[in-house]
Amino acid sequence: MGLKSVRIIGSGLIGTSIGLALSAKGVDVEMVDSDEEAQALAQELVGYSGEPDVADLIIIAVPIGAFKKVIKSEFALNPNSIFIDISSVKTKPLVDVSEIDGLEERFCFTHPMAGREVGGAQSARGDLFASRPWIITPTLLTSEHAIAIATEVAEMCSAITFHMPPAEHDKAVALVSHLPQILASLLAKALTSGEPTWLELSGQGLRDMTRLAGSSAVLWEEILSSNASHIRPLLISLQKDLTILVESLNDSRVAHALIEDGNKGRERIPGKHGGTARDYTYVPIVIQDKPGQLAALFNECAVAGVNVEDLTIEHTPGQFTGLVTLAILSSLDAYKLTTHLSTRGWSIHASRNS
Amino acid sequence: MGLKSVRIIGSGLIGTSIGLALSAKGVDVEMVDSDEEAQALAQELVGYSGEPDVADLIIIAVPIGAFKKVIKSEFALNPNSIFIDISSVKTKPLVDVSEIDGLEERFCFTHPMAGREVGGAQSARGDLFASRPWIITPTLLTSEHAIAIATEVAEMCSAITFHMPPAEHDKAVALVSHLPQILASLLAKALTSGEPTWLELSGQGLRDMTRLAGSSAVLWEEILSSNASHIRPLLISLQKDLTILVESLNDSRVAHALIEDGNKGRERIPGKHGGTARDYTYVPIVIQDKPGQLAALFNECAVAGVNVEDLTIEHTPGQFTGLVTLAILSSLDAYKLTTHLSTRGWSIHASRNS
Repeated sequence: MGLKSVRIIGSGLIGTSIGLALSAKGVDVEMVDSDEEAQALAQELVGYSGEPDVADLIIIAVPIGAFKKVIKSEFALNPNSIFIDISSVKTKPLVDVSEIDGLEERFCFTHPMAGREVGGAQSARGDLFASRPWIITPTLLTSEHAIAIATEVAEMCSAITFHMPPAEHDKAVALVSHLPQILASLLAKALTSGEPTWLELSGQGLRDMTRLAGSSAVLWEEILSSNASHIRPLLISLQKDLTILVESLNDSRVAHALIEDGNKGRERIPGKHGGTARDYTYVPIVIQDKPGQLAALFNECAVAGVNVEDLTIEHTPGQFTGLVTLAILSSLDAYKLTTHLSTRGWSIHASRNS
Repeated sequence: MGLKSVRIIGSGLIGTSIGLALSAKGVDVEMVDSDEEAQALAQELVGYSGEPDVADLIIIAVPIGAFKKVIKSEFALNPNSIFIDISSVKTKPLVDVSEIDGLEERFCFTHPMAGREVGGAQSARGDLFASRPWIITPTLLTSEHAIAIATEVAEMCSAITFHMPPAEHDKAVALVSHLPQILASLLAKALTSGEPTWLELSGQGLRDMTRLAGSSAVLWEEILSSNASHIRPLLISLQKDLTILVESLNDSRVAHALIEDGNKGRERIPGKHGGTARDYTYVPIVIQDKPGQLAALFNECAVAGVNVEDLTIEHTPGQFTGLVTLAILSSLDAYKLTTHLSTRGWSIHASRNS
């Protein structure tokens, strides 16, 4: 394609991170922000490229509230450029773009699914999008050229591209991103009613289930409220399931069906590397909670020539040992590793499949 | 105390694991099961101790359905022994015990909070309870002697003991164990309505939120149904929260309040080692997905003298690199580690607090 010159409106985390990635690939990047200091910092980070040309591409990386005003003025300034956005929810941006004559064919909506728990240009990273999904969501009017440019940007940022229409995008993220966020927050909220002693009984399960509850309210209020129409049917379906449980959880068949339905849903989540879900063999090992133990353990894995796909560290209240569980792809490798570790004197337990 | 002789009714995972732990401490253990083969296997694993004496302690490790019959016959056989159970929910066992004259003062309810994804004597491990919570739940009638014996058993199994009344136990596990299980299953169930492509967008958050959904329906139908009375108020409270969201999620103030309430609840979960929740500093590092990379990384941590408290491996669809995030207790250590890794050529990102 040969993207040469890009103008990025919005010098926050996402805008500046895209700027860093494109600049590293030799693209001239002009950073813009209503906040002069943010703009100056972002431009310094991204690098100056002399006199700004007319930009091939305008990237709209501003909050939803500022979106309409920005696209209006930018399209007036650059009527021959291509436009993309980075919004998490497409409903409102879609309306805003459609209301400006001639813009929609030049506009390709996109959603890079990456972020950090800190914001601003100072937190930007050129590799923020590496190996993360980047959804390309053209409308029926979006030109092939605009789609190609959007895809090129995502690929220059080393992201994995997915293509789907905007409405499907909003439905998809309602399910795989917004609903988990809501349930994590609701569960964590329920914990405020418990005694401190009860919370000392928390296992890894509860910790995993509430990690997302640490999310930023400022960031999520906009995402959830602007995608309410797609989230609502999911919540209503959840209400129906909850009503059944409230009425009949004392019936063990109802409890059984709930867990079985959950088993089925969980099996639908693909495993690592975008493949189908995989059955790992798990090898649990007790280690001392001090520097060097994990290093020594992973050295043994390397010596055994076994690749660790995933691992968890079990937090245990009151004691200074930890249970590390390694996920191994093949049961043969798990057997090799178990045998190897045992001969080296590690406190290793029987491996198990899940 | 000097526990000498124990009779364990129920040769499943929990019963046999307790048998292994006690036997290793020199206690004579007799394993009993209605299934002769299970009993023989469990006894062989635990070891024979010659002619069985009258047992100091009877451990009831049978499913709730068999509980009443077993305590009746065992109390008739051993009227001078102490009794403990291992049930996950106390409501029904409490009634069963109270209906047998003279038993309740000799009976101390307990709940070892440990398990595996596989069952049976063949999956038993003497260290199953090491560093895990073991709740001691005496009634007002339970004798000091019975409480002391129950505590001794938990300690011989290297568990961390907590003491609370049975009714409080059931309320506590409804909140910290049963509610997370139900929400994980409900969320996973919701995924069955999504397109396969949508699930390819799944991040670590969704994976964490649905891990518990892999639980066994046979095991959980009994737990959830028998604790329905304590779970119900939590579900009703959840219904109320959901109703507000269904009606007003498009109001960003409502979405904001939800996330903020979740933030507060999450802060109540204690961190590692039973202390108060800790703020870790997180150090994200990109590694190649091949044997030896984690070993090399943890070697560097050991060289830097930095202890890793926790870590996650980010699964990314389609690419063979991984993002490992290390949780470090002090920001100074995180700084030391970041500096050290950078000089060694690791692809390290700015650390962040959470």
